Amino acid sequence: MNELTIWTYDWVPNMPRGFVRDLRLRWACEEAGLSYAMRTIPFDGRETNHLALQPFGQVPFLKDGELKIFESGAGLLHLARKSDKLMPRDAEGEAATLQWTIAALNSIEMVTVPWWFLKMSGDANNPLTEWVSKRLDQLERVLSEQEWLAAQRFTVADLLMTDVLRVADVRSFGKRPATEAYVTRVTNRPSFKKAHADQIAHFEAADKTHEPKTR
Amino acid sequence: MNELTIWTYDWVPNMPRGFVRDLRLRWACEEAGLSYAMRTIPFDGRETNHLALQPFGQVPFLKDGELKIFESGAGLLHLARKSDKLMPRDAEGEAATLQWTIAALNSIEMVTVPWWFLKMSGDANNPLTEWVSKRLDQLERVLSEQEWLAAQRFTVADLLMTDVLRVADVRSFGKRPATEAYVTRVTNRPSFKKAHADQIAHFEAADKTHEPKTR
Repeated sequence: MNELTIWTYDWVPNMPRGFVRDLRLRWACEEAGLSYAMRTIPFDGRETNHLALQPFGQVPFLKDGELKIFESGAGLLHLARKSDKLMPRDAEGEAATLQWTIAALNSIEMVTVPWWFLKMSGDANNPLTEWVSKRLDQLERVLSEQEWLAAQRFTVADLLMTDVLRVADVRSFGKRPATEAYVTRVTNRPSFKKAHADQIAHFEAADKTHEPKTR
Repeated sequence: MNELTIWTYDWVPNMPRGFVRDLRLRWACEEAGLSYAMRTIPFDGRETNHLALQPFGQVPFLKDGELKIFESGAGLLHLARKSDKLMPRDAEGEAATLQWTIAALNSIEMVTVPWWFLKMSGDANNPLTEWVSKRLDQLERVLSEQEWLAAQRFTVADLLMTDVLRVADVRSFGKRPATEAYVTRVTNRPSFKKAHADQIAHFEAADKTHEPKTR
């Protein structure tokens, strides 16, 4: 029996496939060698059908034995405490991993996700572009000087930052070679490739049986 | 000698006073009864003058003995590990505190800060208003059913969520009585009042000696 269960949607349209955030938790489990089961909640009615499990109607959420945890960032930090493959065990390495994990969520993604939202809304003159560019410049400077964000090794902070950058499509903001090499390097990890392929396969399988109300 | 040191700016203009994020770390230390020292970096040149300490040019950052931590959210989670006044010690309480701390950073603040940024940019028809309203509705539902976000008691998640909501000016989004009562209840805590007053006093004292290049 699996102690760890990750919830995602039963089906999503084509566009978000490969980007739904259950990928973060799958990936972390793969890196750490933690076995896990997948479960689904319906995509249709997602705004209100699982508010008791996730008050913002989002996925993923995680069950670890009797513990329930929503927010992908919280799930990652929880999993990181279970395996030193995700986070070093010394105080300095742990603090560095924590700060860069939060930086991915609150300094980079806080700008890139609203930027993407406005882009999808069709705003040709996206008012957040300058802010995203500035943050990516700051990150480029860091990644020009070091291979990994924390503790001179791969950590859950790299996993999360890479996923954030991948969604933001760094290349559309101009040439940032260190950041591009970093995203390529991290997404070449076998655990990312497996998690990504598994998510794609999960939603493709759903096409055969799922007749959604919304497409 | 203080083990804990919190860095903030030496001076800021009037508008952000009472809202600079060093307040979060001051407040957490006050709640936990942890003694701390304050240190400053110059507001002038803040974009580049302390990138070795904070790669995004922001404040606060924290020093705990030899450990250095930036990102206010990371500082809060680090401090929470030092005192059960900020986070319960049982696994369930800790997971709940973690998920709500991340929710404040990545589900609420990820929308409210860009909303505020666009508002300050003079965008009368703020394209993020609907998204903020939806998130605040979802939070209102939670706070209508429970007094605290995690573990039926005050935790660092309430500290952070309240600070996020306070900045977002929830009232301008219409009547959400449970959320308003929550913000009032949490900001009535003596530790918030002391941290807030100390920040105001810190910047007021700076007015007497500081002749900034930028106002």
